[in-house]
Amino acid sequence: MINQKSVQLGSVRSVIRELFEYGKKRKAEIGEENVFDFSLGNPSVPAPRSVQNELIKILTEGDPVLVHGYTSAQGDFSVRKAVADYINENFSLNLSADNIYMTCGAAASLTITLNALLNSGDEVITIAPYFPEYKVFTEHAGGKLIAVQGMAGTFQPDIAAIKAAITPRTKAVLINSPNNPSGVVYTKQAVEGLCKVLRECKERGQTIYLISDEPYRELVFGGVEVPYIMNYYEDSIVCYSFSKSLSLPGERIGYIAVNPAMQNAAEVYAAVCGAGRALGYVCAPSLFQKLIARVLGTASDISVYSTNRDILVSALQSYGYEVVKPDGAFYLFVKSLEPDSDAFAERAKNYELLLVSAKSFGVEGYVRVSYCVSTDMIKRSLPAFKALADSYKAL
Amino acid sequence: MINQKSVQLGSVRSVIRELFEYGKKRKAEIGEENVFDFSLGNPSVPAPRSVQNELIKILTEGDPVLVHGYTSAQGDFSVRKAVADYINENFSLNLSADNIYMTCGAAASLTITLNALLNSGDEVITIAPYFPEYKVFTEHAGGKLIAVQGMAGTFQPDIAAIKAAITPRTKAVLINSPNNPSGVVYTKQAVEGLCKVLRECKERGQTIYLISDEPYRELVFGGVEVPYIMNYYEDSIVCYSFSKSLSLPGERIGYIAVNPAMQNAAEVYAAVCGAGRALGYVCAPSLFQKLIARVLGTASDISVYSTNRDILVSALQSYGYEVVKPDGAFYLFVKSLEPDSDAFAERAKNYELLLVSAKSFGVEGYVRVSYCVSTDMIKRSLPAFKALADSYKAL
Repeated sequence: MINQKSVQLGSVRSVIRELFEYGKKRKAEIGEENVFDFSLGNPSVPAPRSVQNELIKILTEGDPVLVHGYTSAQGDFSVRKAVADYINENFSLNLSADNIYMTCGAAASLTITLNALLNSGDEVITIAPYFPEYKVFTEHAGGKLIAVQGMAGTFQPDIAAIKAAITPRTKAVLINSPNNPSGVVYTKQAVEGLCKVLRECKERGQTIYLISDEPYRELVFGGVEVPYIMNYYEDSIVCYSFSKSLSLPGERIGYIAVNPAMQNAAEVYAAVCGAGRALGYVCAPSLFQKLIARVLGTASDISVYSTNRDILVSALQSYGYEVVKPDGAFYLFVKSLEPDSDAFAERAKNYELLLVSAKSFGVEGYVRVSYCVSTDMIKRSLPAFKALADSYKAL
Repeated sequence: MINQKSVQLGSVRSVIRELFEYGKKRKAEIGEENVFDFSLGNPSVPAPRSVQNELIKILTEGDPVLVHGYTSAQGDFSVRKAVADYINENFSLNLSADNIYMTCGAAASLTITLNALLNSGDEVITIAPYFPEYKVFTEHAGGKLIAVQGMAGTFQPDIAAIKAAITPRTKAVLINSPNNPSGVVYTKQAVEGLCKVLRECKERGQTIYLISDEPYRELVFGGVEVPYIMNYYEDSIVCYSFSKSLSLPGERIGYIAVNPAMQNAAEVYAAVCGAGRALGYVCAPSLFQKLIARVLGTASDISVYSTNRDILVSALQSYGYEVVKPDGAFYLFVKSLEPDSDAFAERAKNYELLLVSAKSFGVEGYVRVSYCVSTDMIKRSLPAFKALADSYKAL
């Protein structure tokens, strides 16, 4: 008998993936232009031009043995130094290269961090709605994911509920802002409230690490600020990926940053290195490490996401939908027009609208609309959204 | 308390890494040209020219959103199809794209495969000398690594000893040929003998998977053949990496191939997908996946390794060393001139020779010489090897 948990994880498709596959089939049947596929969170804008230019420069000017060679397990020193300097400059901090561990993207950042921190049976608190793989990653690291509902309507952290969920086994709180799937950016006030609770635990002798999963950090609209957790709490770890900011999701490049203000920062960093080793992450992809050092601070042109958001939000509101206005990422959280969001998403298919029921994100009564699509498709989809809303009024 | 096993894995440097760091320090002290560093197994020849050409072509001609976008979790279909076709053509097999799972390199291939197969407490047999991370990977997957000594002098598999090591908890046998650290290629006869034992277990109702870790497959000299295990045993899985054949060790690209002749091939493949998901491996680096489909079957010019091997073997033998003549990889296994190979490697430092004591590979009385270095350094190092040998004769 082989490992049945692995078999099960590999056999059951996620709701998102299931819907995406349905969409592919449906497009083949009725034509791509007639299906409004809002299922996937895949960047639709290209990487900045500088990415292509710098990649070609590295390939043509660099020594291929060095360009494609092993870096140290935690990443090339000069790349880690560049990332540390970038963080320091932007958030007035004091990280060194040895606080940075380069990773194969966001999922790797999270699995490595969780395997570094958790002992068997430890609990990780997250805030619903949350990215479903958090549960898979936490459980594989021997832990248990405890989902605490966000505030009704705003989906900001519910500080009192988080406080109530803390037990002696709580090892970490895992947040994601800008949030997938709600697009909500956690406010400074919310982050301060959360850190106050964690600091009280610390004073009572229990260290709870705050892990911030932030692949959407740069995808914010209207000048909204995303608080940098290292400025609020010492026992904090940032899990970053360049997938969204540079539109490089397939290249698997990101990092883990360990707050140097942490009392046991060196121990946590060693554990990160050890967990990376045990999971088989030796060095992050070398060419893309080198690229990162050259393009830090540049980002894809995300103005299309902002345009899409504005069109969708105002149209959907005018049709009678209740939406959570997103300040970031490229997701819109829409209240289901009937209590069961699965039934609502299923009904939306009659109008060729592919919306993800939010149940798998740990929340009832909502669907996720991924608007990292063309503005043209957004505009063409509006009559379908209207017809879907009208179909409920007719009941 | 964070995870102490991770802390320990991240704090204790491997013997190889320790020696490499010593070498860096020593080179700074007495000059790079005066240190003969045989510590690391890092390819010293560049990637084939076609790698650079094709990368630039993909970057300039491809749609960047597709080039850098997510592929499916198990890898792009057309890339997997190309890999399957390549294997079929070379080894007269019948794999499909759905027997191939693209990975972030050899370490990922192994951790994913072990997490797919093992239940807690399962045993994995390997043959000493073996790559030390096998123990780390197996233990993290909940298993126990059982090392069986290879045949004295040849380091071919000892079939009787393997048979004796099988218990009801044996889930897999993990082999590595061409072998790191011995350079030995397992013969057809040895592979047949091993598979016969495994088939007998199967007949008694115990399925034991044969995992072949083969990043050095193409690095063989003098036309020696490396048996392809799928031609010998149904319950077999190949873990491959392009690190050595294409000199791309830092780019983390490889694959897992599940033998379609396996009765439960679909279940094992699903478990591979599930384990990859739980470990945080979503899709292998996208640009390099696309590259692989274009350069399958090409390889770096490995003639320098062959030259180095010949020079080293004949010189060392003439100085009185006993060596295991390697048919592949870029490692030479040399018998220590005193029983304790740690002491021998330490003494070699007096002659500025950096050799890895083979204790961490599970074998007593040998050192590993990595000859993936310049031929010039090999030649300049010979007097040091001679002086080291002479120093023992003088005793």
